[in-house]
Amino acid sequence: MKVVVLVGGVGGAKLALGLAKVLPPENLTVIVNTGDDTWMYGLRICPDLDTIMYTLSDLVNKENGWGVAGDTFQTIAAMKRFGEDAWFGLGDQDMATHILRTRWLQVGTTLTDITGRLTKKLGIRQQILPMTNEPVATIVDTHEYGEIDFQTYFVRYRWQPTVKSLRLDGIEATSVSIEVETALKQADALIVGPSNPWLSIDPILSVPGMRDLIGSLNIPRVAISPIVGGEAVKGPAAKLMVELGHESSAVAVARYYGDLLNGFVYDESDSEMVVPQQYATKFETIMKNDEIKVALARNVLEWIQNWK
Amino acid sequence: MKVVVLVGGVGGAKLALGLAKVLPPENLTVIVNTGDDTWMYGLRICPDLDTIMYTLSDLVNKENGWGVAGDTFQTIAAMKRFGEDAWFGLGDQDMATHILRTRWLQVGTTLTDITGRLTKKLGIRQQILPMTNEPVATIVDTHEYGEIDFQTYFVRYRWQPTVKSLRLDGIEATSVSIEVETALKQADALIVGPSNPWLSIDPILSVPGMRDLIGSLNIPRVAISPIVGGEAVKGPAAKLMVELGHESSAVAVARYYGDLLNGFVYDESDSEMVVPQQYATKFETIMKNDEIKVALARNVLEWIQNWK
Repeated sequence: MKVVVLVGGVGGAKLALGLAKVLPPENLTVIVNTGDDTWMYGLRICPDLDTIMYTLSDLVNKENGWGVAGDTFQTIAAMKRFGEDAWFGLGDQDMATHILRTRWLQVGTTLTDITGRLTKKLGIRQQILPMTNEPVATIVDTHEYGEIDFQTYFVRYRWQPTVKSLRLDGIEATSVSIEVETALKQADALIVGPSNPWLSIDPILSVPGMRDLIGSLNIPRVAISPIVGGEAVKGPAAKLMVELGHESSAVAVARYYGDLLNGFVYDESDSEMVVPQQYATKFETIMKNDEIKVALARNVLEWIQNWK
Repeated sequence: MKVVVLVGGVGGAKLALGLAKVLPPENLTVIVNTGDDTWMYGLRICPDLDTIMYTLSDLVNKENGWGVAGDTFQTIAAMKRFGEDAWFGLGDQDMATHILRTRWLQVGTTLTDITGRLTKKLGIRQQILPMTNEPVATIVDTHEYGEIDFQTYFVRYRWQPTVKSLRLDGIEATSVSIEVETALKQADALIVGPSNPWLSIDPILSVPGMRDLIGSLNIPRVAISPIVGGEAVKGPAAKLMVELGHESSAVAVARYYGDLLNGFVYDESDSEMVVPQQYATKFETIMKNDEIKVALARNVLEWIQNWK
């Protein structure tokens, strides 16, 4: 069974790892949000792509869920010596990724090819694809600071500002890459990871043509809720839902995806719920360790295979 | 007495440090070779500027004479993981310099202003100036590899290839900056450091207008020999002299500078020599420690003051 999973950062990476441990590598494609991407000191940073890459190569700092385990911060420390604010924690090993990616972008390599080159060198056999090759920037309009870029909102202000709205700068000029289109058309199942629907999945779905392409796929199209018991497992999802006028619940996530998806998975600790999707079930979804990641991946795959 | 010193890397940096410990900071300007500058992974590397900066800020790795003391090499190690050859040893602290410089160049800041900004942040009160704002690249034509760039010759192949000739790519499009011109016109003395005349000083003198400007200065214009007892104190100077058809001697260095300079300093261990310059003397020039650097600086300054 060929599976495509749509993900943002840490939560999505955990599910991707579970799927990677269950599926033959050639049967898994991970399509990654790039709305978080940013420029820092002239370097192109792709936080979600890197989180997926470090997770699937087992380089990841398992405490954070992002960055490289045991990484040092000498370059950032030296930047502070030069008077830089340096609030974005780029590790020294991590820096190699940003420097090489930026260099290859400069000479015209696509982000898809760069991601393929980096991940293959780390021994990753699954296909990891950016949602698009063209740059997009999630812009967060906040009560406190007006419009700020995503990393300023997320890292610098630790997602504490109140969000009025979100927009995706540059999204109209992006397109679905051949690689993404091919992976989706060949997929036997589409899984939307337990990532933030607004900050991580919406950018992917907003690439012109993506929503129609996904809606046209006559396959299981299943989301896993990032909201458990009305709270986000990690990060600003619940807070953001309320700020954007939604109820903070798994049902509200299911409603948000609507009939773009035909299946929905919520956590076993939540009470039974009625969702707009044709199929729904519950599993243990809080992926505290690798066993739960694998079990969730296996459970979801078995469940959708039984639809037929 | 306002002093301008022309330097390349390590040897010149030692003299600059001696002068910095003797002169009021506002009376010393260091004009630095940028023919060694190169691009690595999309980053602009200025080895000689950095050696001077790290030396005068006391950050320098005193064993090497270049790089930052105690620096680590995590980024370079991570680049090797991505399959990069990474033969140029960029330290993690050092990397901050290259990243910031590259960023500021991208937004149109001159190399002179960037150098000023970096050095001031490190507490350096002397003026450090690149020889020109425009990029130049020393190209080394070798018997073994044909034309290679300077760092490939110097670092990758450890100056072992046989040199047929040198050329300065882009030199005709460079110009003497306002800052360099002002410093030279206000100088009471010009000192050419014990740097490699062909690889370090010649690029400076080859900036269009530089040779005429220096020749027109009616002040002491003194070189310190980088050749002692027919050998280079450090690096390829002696080997290169022979390959380029010169005798490997201090006299040959003095002859090379000719009447552009009016004074010449050679090492006390060398026998008396007749040089084309009007004045010549000998001092202890092998700057093994800070005391000798200071003594050499003081000796040279006292000597030229007695010319009048």
